[in-house]
Amino acid sequence: MTAAAPEPAPRKRGRPARTDPAAGPGARERILTAARAEFAGRGYDKASIRAIARGAGVDPALVHHYFGPKEQIFAAAIETDFAPALRAPAVVRDGGPEALGERLTRFILGVWEDPATREPLLAIVRSAVANETAAAVFRDLVTRRLMARVADELDTPDPRLSSELAAAHLVGVAMLRHVIKVEPLASADIEQVIAMVAPAVQRHLTAPGAPG
Amino acid sequence: MTAAAPEPAPRKRGRPARTDPAAGPGARERILTAARAEFAGRGYDKASIRAIARGAGVDPALVHHYFGPKEQIFAAAIETDFAPALRAPAVVRDGGPEALGERLTRFILGVWEDPATREPLLAIVRSAVANETAAAVFRDLVTRRLMARVADELDTPDPRLSSELAAAHLVGVAMLRHVIKVEPLASADIEQVIAMVAPAVQRHLTAPGAPG
Repeated sequence: MTAAAPEPAPRKRGRPARTDPAAGPGARERILTAARAEFAGRGYDKASIRAIARGAGVDPALVHHYFGPKEQIFAAAIETDFAPALRAPAVVRDGGPEALGERLTRFILGVWEDPATREPLLAIVRSAVANETAAAVFRDLVTRRLMARVADELDTPDPRLSSELAAAHLVGVAMLRHVIKVEPLASADIEQVIAMVAPAVQRHLTAPGAPG
Repeated sequence: MTAAAPEPAPRKRGRPARTDPAAGPGARERILTAARAEFAGRGYDKASIRAIARGAGVDPALVHHYFGPKEQIFAAAIETDFAPALRAPAVVRDGGPEALGERLTRFILGVWEDPATREPLLAIVRSAVANETAAAVFRDLVTRRLMARVADELDTPDPRLSSELAAAHLVGVAMLRHVIKVEPLASADIEQVIAMVAPAVQRHLTAPGAPG
């Protein structure tokens, strides 16, 4: 870990920073926006609470007051950045089982296809790959809000593992298409990719994991 | 990009550094070992040619003499680190098509299962996710030495895309199991994971990508 900015004073619960003229109804939102920009631009390791406070125009103590320590600010920031993908359980639920794989594949690859939703995801992946604490915060979010809820919709012998293996396939496609950019996958028509990936995802989501 | 160490003098072809007492038969190997450690420890962005030279006990100009600029040193370093995975085309070739998916899945997940081969791969992924140049160097290696050669062994309508989608599934499993460490996948018995993933990989490697 690189040297982070010194932590601000310990969080004082129940003591809103009324004396800070920058505090107010918009302060929490401004801090969250500044935090997302700071984590995306510099990664979890190098992001500093001072810089987030500066970006939001508030005192560092107010950042700590609203969000707690750095990892909790990161948790709040990625919950916002990851929000588009969190619709996945509803996508799984809303429709019949026969097109489940196609529906989830189209939805998740679509989130990665749009630069507006892709870039925040890429920033989270960069932080998680580089830093164990960031990986743990992301893991907690993905487990609670995505995997557990998708698994609740499945009727396989091992729904948690099934949902994670389906997710693994989609994560891998996103990595090779949008991060490593291996050709021909990086330039392939998205409909062809969906058509080739959906049956594998369908199998994970609907079939028992019997060997061979 | 963070500030890298100043580049050493331009490469002088055909001029071995005979005057450098540290040059010699072992110098190239020492430089390569030091480069792998430097890139793994600090990532592509922050790795410096000076530090590599210091690690190898040679002059920075000798690093440049043997390997050229930073991205070519990185290419040589990851070719060594990635060597275990480069056996995949032989694994695909050596055996019948009926167990192809199981064979490739077992081989690639096995490379990720062993910490000795996993850690260098993780270091490459960290550099590639954080830096476009590192991603391009890795992409070139993966395309030439892995994807094209696996594709040569396949009998599908679109073998390059098929081999990349099979790889995508395995990369995604490795990311969720070893980087994000999502449970239950992270602790699942590897034989159960292989049994559940192999049919999807088999389908990519042997079946046409027909929709539905």
